Amino acid sequence: MSVMYNRVALIGLGLIASSMHWAMKRGGLAGEVTGYARSEETRETARRIGLCDRVCDSAAEAVEGADLVVLCVPVGVMGAVAAEIKDALAAGATVTDVGSVKRDVIAAVGPHIPENVHFIPGHPMAGTEYSGPESGFAELFDDRWCFLVPVEDTCPDAIAKLRAYWEALGSNVEEMDAEHHDLVVAVTSHAPHLIAYTMVGVADDLRRVTDSEVIKFSAGGFRDFTRIAASDPTMWRDVFLTNKDATLEILGRFTEELFALQRAIRTGDGDHLFDYFTRTRAIRRSIIDAGQDTDAPNFGRTGTPKS
Amino acid sequence: MSVMYNRVALIGLGLIASSMHWAMKRGGLAGEVTGYARSEETRETARRIGLCDRVCDSAAEAVEGADLVVLCVPVGVMGAVAAEIKDALAAGATVTDVGSVKRDVIAAVGPHIPENVHFIPGHPMAGTEYSGPESGFAELFDDRWCFLVPVEDTCPDAIAKLRAYWEALGSNVEEMDAEHHDLVVAVTSHAPHLIAYTMVGVADDLRRVTDSEVIKFSAGGFRDFTRIAASDPTMWRDVFLTNKDATLEILGRFTEELFALQRAIRTGDGDHLFDYFTRTRAIRRSIIDAGQDTDAPNFGRTGTPKS
Repeated sequence: MSVMYNRVALIGLGLIASSMHWAMKRGGLAGEVTGYARSEETRETARRIGLCDRVCDSAAEAVEGADLVVLCVPVGVMGAVAAEIKDALAAGATVTDVGSVKRDVIAAVGPHIPENVHFIPGHPMAGTEYSGPESGFAELFDDRWCFLVPVEDTCPDAIAKLRAYWEALGSNVEEMDAEHHDLVVAVTSHAPHLIAYTMVGVADDLRRVTDSEVIKFSAGGFRDFTRIAASDPTMWRDVFLTNKDATLEILGRFTEELFALQRAIRTGDGDHLFDYFTRTRAIRRSIIDAGQDTDAPNFGRTGTPKS
Repeated sequence: MSVMYNRVALIGLGLIASSMHWAMKRGGLAGEVTGYARSEETRETARRIGLCDRVCDSAAEAVEGADLVVLCVPVGVMGAVAAEIKDALAAGATVTDVGSVKRDVIAAVGPHIPENVHFIPGHPMAGTEYSGPESGFAELFDDRWCFLVPVEDTCPDAIAKLRAYWEALGSNVEEMDAEHHDLVVAVTSHAPHLIAYTMVGVADDLRRVTDSEVIKFSAGGFRDFTRIAASDPTMWRDVFLTNKDATLEILGRFTEELFALQRAIRTGDGDHLFDYFTRTRAIRRSIIDAGQDTDAPNFGRTGTPKS
């Protein structure tokens, strides 16, 4: 138990903020945690379940006197929220965010940050398919990566402190620049999500196979896509609209590759398919070796699909 | 414990056959289980781990006197295996298979089946990303679906017996015709696998994001694809080559839908994206309600990616 920030303000109270709250409580990392959510319903839920020491009725009130302010709202509204709080920020405070896109957030939030406040963009690469104030849990960040994407001339001490804080929340921290970050997440997260959404949408859309058949027989592979295609619609809409270029680039490459495989199927080129499928198998092995996934068959779900 | 077939011959000793063996032992469903695999290495492994009561050195020897013969080889070699065993099949025996494609298997195997033998094509929709004789386990078929795809004029008693056998192995059984089967699995299994293979291949192929970054940061969504993209390359090559039409049809629909979403990203049509993502979220809910997946966040992997 060691307090790292005296007051931490969480603006937006969804999956990430609520998990940060419980992880802070687990580690005793904050003197006080304040919180704010735009919707009254969310604020009431937060109060009911003890999410935040103090739930405020405005973002400005929540950030007053906070030495760490974390913007946990969809990336599309980061700029507006920054404008709301800018006059209430304490001198010397650090403002960070948890948005999945960094160039756009920096452009939207940066101009609102006062001279005497540190702005250190961040992105914990952790989540589940659930959202809202009741979906958080203290272990969400354990052994997951958190990106810090410092802008130029940021105070090294403020960065080091934020890094130590994320490590205390359970994460491994990696620093990189915004452009590279947005490309890395386009590959590892954004494009996969769009592909999953598309596949699930297509299956739902087919008229010759009934909905109930798609659902009944989903264990053949389809169900693996449905988890990430169940992620928060608002968050993901904003991600794609703000990381447009990198996502479209990867999707272009994906389509190219898909066409090559379709052509191999059409022309009966079994060797091309076999070689491709052998290569992708090796990648899974690397991910398991890197501790980024379980090696239990079927993600450990086998035989007990529903507890 | 009730013996349903006096002698069951498993031809091909991979994930499905080995799981059938252990499930038969669990339920005491077979008097004797014989087995054959083309590779001597696989036969030796089978003998070492006690897979099958008797491992034979030819397919013909394995099927002698068997009242149930199960073809558990990749669909591309089903016809050749049927030709190998046809003269050794006992009168009144039932031949079935576990191939993921049915029209092609029926066309390849059917002509080799003697008049006095029942041929009842089957497809247990169960598996993991692992393959080989050591990957099987008794629970693989529990609560999963198994398709039976009887051809015309098949003896109803033989079908009823095979159905009861699959139910005793743990499965739910669904009968349908071959054409509909091949379409259903194209949607729920074959197209998702090809999409996953493609996504994993693309990520591996990118030069601007290093391999180690793709692996390190895979928990952002990418890792969900890698499981099914780690499935057996030979099996899947054959699936795509033999269920060509249905798979290409679904992939065509997929591409169309993907282009519509790409256009929405490019033009900034947030409403289209939001509506699409809301719909796909509901489908996951249905799959969980149908008992076909776990409702634990991250498939239950959270916080403990590697045990």
